[in-house]
Amino acid sequence: MEQFSTICVVGLGLIGGAMVKTIKNKTDLRIYGHNRTKAVSEKAKAEGNIDGIFPDDISANEIDLWILSLYPDACISFVKEHLSEMKPGAVIVDCCGTKTKICNALTDVCETAGVHFIGGHPMAGIEKSGYDASFAGLFDNASMILCKLDSSDEASFERLREFFPKLGFGYVKESNPTEHDRVIAYTSQMAHVVSSAYIKSDACKIRYGFSAGSFKDMTRVAYLNETMWTELFLENREFLLAEMEEYISHMREYRDALKASDEEMLCKLLKEGRLCKEADIAGEEKLKRERNNE
Amino acid sequence: MEQFSTICVVGLGLIGGAMVKTIKNKTDLRIYGHNRTKAVSEKAKAEGNIDGIFPDDISANEIDLWILSLYPDACISFVKEHLSEMKPGAVIVDCCGTKTKICNALTDVCETAGVHFIGGHPMAGIEKSGYDASFAGLFDNASMILCKLDSSDEASFERLREFFPKLGFGYVKESNPTEHDRVIAYTSQMAHVVSSAYIKSDACKIRYGFSAGSFKDMTRVAYLNETMWTELFLENREFLLAEMEEYISHMREYRDALKASDEEMLCKLLKEGRLCKEADIAGEEKLKRERNNE
Repeated sequence: MEQFSTICVVGLGLIGGAMVKTIKNKTDLRIYGHNRTKAVSEKAKAEGNIDGIFPDDISANEIDLWILSLYPDACISFVKEHLSEMKPGAVIVDCCGTKTKICNALTDVCETAGVHFIGGHPMAGIEKSGYDASFAGLFDNASMILCKLDSSDEASFERLREFFPKLGFGYVKESNPTEHDRVIAYTSQMAHVVSSAYIKSDACKIRYGFSAGSFKDMTRVAYLNETMWTELFLENREFLLAEMEEYISHMREYRDALKASDEEMLCKLLKEGRLCKEADIAGEEKLKRERNNE
Repeated sequence: MEQFSTICVVGLGLIGGAMVKTIKNKTDLRIYGHNRTKAVSEKAKAEGNIDGIFPDDISANEIDLWILSLYPDACISFVKEHLSEMKPGAVIVDCCGTKTKICNALTDVCETAGVHFIGGHPMAGIEKSGYDASFAGLFDNASMILCKLDSSDEASFERLREFFPKLGFGYVKESNPTEHDRVIAYTSQMAHVVSSAYIKSDACKIRYGFSAGSFKDMTRVAYLNETMWTELFLENREFLLAEMEEYISHMREYRDALKASDEEMLCKLLKEGRLCKEADIAGEEKLKRERNNE
């Protein structure tokens, strides 16, 4: 399968910064960067993490692979602005946290222009943001989700499936925008909502000396970029709203059982949760065995 | 200050098991164990983690310090059953997750009998339970909370404050049952409720390949001992109920903002959570500096 030789990462924040640092660190591909605030791309170049800056040092028609690490709307604008200059057959993959909107906006437009868009979502992150917080190795053993529509280019999808493990990803998950957005509403977006709501208790202010691992786990991702998450939440409104409703109704069951001092019900609710967790662990172990046998 | 020389740990589950293993590992004190299922104390003795079994190898009036690692009601029963045989001046500390009930039940009864009860709560744990899952080092750098009433014996409190750091605890937090139960309802009990409710989403069953650190953090403590937590929740009903109500009302704010597609409000709610987390991190760093200067 044809390999990529020249890559441009657009948006050198935490994810884009980690992309250029990882590509430079783990491959010998030519890697270019573009960032709205140019001082960041200049720093990346001075540090040797990119070979040059787009568009100063390379033109769009020399790029084989574009990795977009901007907010969703900015990704769409960037592609539409540069599409006519892009190399025929070039592949574009984004890193946004929701997939329906961007895949719908770009897949067919790109195909018509002879360029191939595939939706991507690297399942990695830390609480900090920005280029300076990024590092090669952020993606080690993480899952890279790739989403296609019926009209997506199959060959480009396969090229990306081969490419991302070279950056340290442990697994490439094949999905579609609807499945992705439904599940991500739960695994990622809800985790941020829950953490954000959890840390607001008045008791938090006097929690020092009273907290162990579970408090830390619950509140870690409350430290978030509210602008980015607001955009992601609104783009995924239906799925996230459904998760919130389901979750609030579960919370009410525990509240009602405790209010009624209903020992049997409380124990039943907690046991159900424990069994869900056991099933989840078993499912993960099964998946690991399958991957090891691949 | 007078040191303890002979200790008996009652209940050799995860916490009691870790207590005997840690005491054997880090001190040269004489350590005895008692467990309802005797095979466990016999195993602990055979492994050399205890010097003997109570009451087979030692009598109650030889024990300086009792560490109770049973469920709350069982702790109270054990003390009442053995109080008359205990050595005058002996100290009893428990490891239960709530403190009001046990401190009220035992403090004055023990003082009257010439024995000193202090409420304790080691802020450490893992998802597994039982002696076999326990290990020396479980308490390393953890916080040990000690609670007293006005009628508690001050000298015994101070002896325990000196004792626990020898087991690896990083910090002894002085508190009272009311403060303890209020804050623990939030930092520990609510974390278990939230995790238990979170894992019940239907989306969890198809989450493989779509989850990163935040999902793992949110669901870790859903794997719990429902019998123990039900008892703890009911004992701390008022404080936990207040936390649940506050939390559900926060969750509703996010839900309502998303339902109304109210971008400004959603961003405001997330920002408030982020600022709470920043304040929490700053508070923790301040505390660390103060402890380092002690």
